[in-house]
Amino acid sequence: MKIINNPAKSEWSTLCKRPQLELDYLEGAVTNILNRVKKSGNEAIRELTLQFDKVEINQLQVSSQEIEEAIALVPASLKSAILSASKNIEVFHSAQRRPIERIETMPGVTCWRKATAIQKVGIYIPGGSAPLFSTVLMLAIPARLAGCEDVILCSPPDRSGKINPAILFAAHLTGVKKIFKIGGAQAIAAMAFGTESIPSVSKIFGPGNQYVTKAKQLISQEGIAIDMPAGPSEVLVIADEFVNPTFVAADLLSQAEHGADSQVVLATTNNQMITLVKEEIEKQLLELPRQEIARAALSNSLCITFNTKTELIQFVNEYAAEHLIINTKDCETLVDQIVNAGSIFLRTLYTRSGRRLRFRHQSYITH
Amino acid sequence: MKIINNPAKSEWSTLCKRPQLELDYLEGAVTNILNRVKKSGNEAIRELTLQFDKVEINQLQVSSQEIEEAIALVPASLKSAILSASKNIEVFHSAQRRPIERIETMPGVTCWRKATAIQKVGIYIPGGSAPLFSTVLMLAIPARLAGCEDVILCSPPDRSGKINPAILFAAHLTGVKKIFKIGGAQAIAAMAFGTESIPSVSKIFGPGNQYVTKAKQLISQEGIAIDMPAGPSEVLVIADEFVNPTFVAADLLSQAEHGADSQVVLATTNNQMITLVKEEIEKQLLELPRQEIARAALSNSLCITFNTKTELIQFVNEYAAEHLIINTKDCETLVDQIVNAGSIFLRTLYTRSGRRLRFRHQSYITH
Repeated sequence: MKIINNPAKSEWSTLCKRPQLELDYLEGAVTNILNRVKKSGNEAIRELTLQFDKVEINQLQVSSQEIEEAIALVPASLKSAILSASKNIEVFHSAQRRPIERIETMPGVTCWRKATAIQKVGIYIPGGSAPLFSTVLMLAIPARLAGCEDVILCSPPDRSGKINPAILFAAHLTGVKKIFKIGGAQAIAAMAFGTESIPSVSKIFGPGNQYVTKAKQLISQEGIAIDMPAGPSEVLVIADEFVNPTFVAADLLSQAEHGADSQVVLATTNNQMITLVKEEIEKQLLELPRQEIARAALSNSLCITFNTKTELIQFVNEYAAEHLIINTKDCETLVDQIVNAGSIFLRTLYTRSGRRLRFRHQSYITH
Repeated sequence: MKIINNPAKSEWSTLCKRPQLELDYLEGAVTNILNRVKKSGNEAIRELTLQFDKVEINQLQVSSQEIEEAIALVPASLKSAILSASKNIEVFHSAQRRPIERIETMPGVTCWRKATAIQKVGIYIPGGSAPLFSTVLMLAIPARLAGCEDVILCSPPDRSGKINPAILFAAHLTGVKKIFKIGGAQAIAAMAFGTESIPSVSKIFGPGNQYVTKAKQLISQEGIAIDMPAGPSEVLVIADEFVNPTFVAADLLSQAEHGADSQVVLATTNNQMITLVKEEIEKQLLELPRQEIARAALSNSLCITFNTKTELIQFVNEYAAEHLIINTKDCETLVDQIVNAGSIFLRTLYTRSGRRLRFRHQSYITH
């Protein structure tokens, strides 16, 4: 991680630029994939799956037998964690249902807003080295609570033609009935245009690599809605001198291990915290199964000190992190000054006899 | 208007296709405009304004003197209508502010959602033959209520280098301080990238022609948010045998007069209503100042009969109209079956002694 002390405001916009691996050929390659799927449906999907996932798939839809097998494969401890997360997400989203409020703007004219579930939605779940079963929960549970009629899910098959069991378990748990073994831009194309086996949807949700993101951007110009163009993952942690560097390091690593193109940023007014956190990161890295990926991400990453908290908050608002973690004594007042962030996590620690620590507040982190 | 009786379901997707004037050269032309503004700022803006709006603009920002002059030019009756609309919109949007609700998902973990105003927003208001001062109200009032710090507005100048007075009056009324005489794709570029005089914004709102829409789509791929890609205007009216064809005709013409590329659709289970509405349209057309535009739009437009209300509603949900008007005796039950529409207007008429008519319910129509 690069250390930057008290950067001048003129340097902020450069510091806020994300490392980008924009590939020149990307748009052309993705357009080609979209056109092939539009024209040849399942046949194109199978060819592209062979090309990119190196596996021949005859039956694109996951069978109920495959789901049963997957459920049996997921370890009990992981099942229990997924169930616990699922319950929390359901409690949180259930509270978002609100009664319709009618406003009489002038005598005889009554106006109201009504939220209606999108009938057909598609969920994309990346596979590969880090299967995002958490994203299944974060997307499929709100879809079920909203009352979406058709929810379809695409996720890439591995070389043996299977989807990660934890993804299938989470999908089954949340009531997703139609699951397809398709990844990449071809999955986005299938859900956007439909094929002989895959129904087309009105809106596509979920993160993905550059191909998936570009495909989502391109189909959004053809009248299919998307949630957002997800970039590489990132986190910015604000830490002061009162907090535990072990936790700051773990929070930074939580996104660094997402991918080599992730960026993590530590912002602090305390120089010493940087030294402590860097030591902790080195310690924790040794135990990380995805150590190499995290190290690559850290090489794009920043530790920045600021003279004042005011300046620090201004920078944080300019950076506009996808995930922001505030780990300071005064986090509950600092959070009111944040105007630009995807999600905010307040880590308030109550230390009892130097050992007992617990989370106090947590914002909703979407993935 | 083309009359279609009981179309087979297999024809629905064709009927749902909007008339499109997709221009091959559009993307290239707009990309060129974006690049010029990115590179040369105000200089490019001035050149493009001369090219497209046929006027030389030295001072891009509207001066306070120009605003005063515009206020003096707006007729009292229009001012009063704008004030009345402004009050209604404010009442409606004020009711959307909600207290933060904290949910304890498990002991010690509290989650909540918090809406924060976008600090810098840009509003695009089309000029030309139909200056959309209503759109100024619909966008600038929510921005003010939300607490957006910087609200900038761009609208094209006429040949004398002025913005329509009603637009300036509405902008002044709603507290917009920075108004620029810039139209088309160059306005979107200016707000997206910023220039020497125009601050860049985080999100751009407002409708526009194909150049504006394409520019919004392209800049949305560079990290600037947009509200949505607005297409040509459209309305679908559901009418039964119990309603007044004068109103149905007026509702159809309200969007037909928007532009030659608008589409209006009448859906009914009553054949006779089509004859009555077509007669009424012919009568009302004669009094319309934008008769030619409305006639062109009507040539792309449809009257469709259905055997049953169930089928009619299925079609309406597949068409997914931007503006839907339900003008039937049972509109308050029909509306619960609508799952796809931008905005819905329920026209319930209570006729007393054959004369007294009043609106009963109205949904919020965004523009």
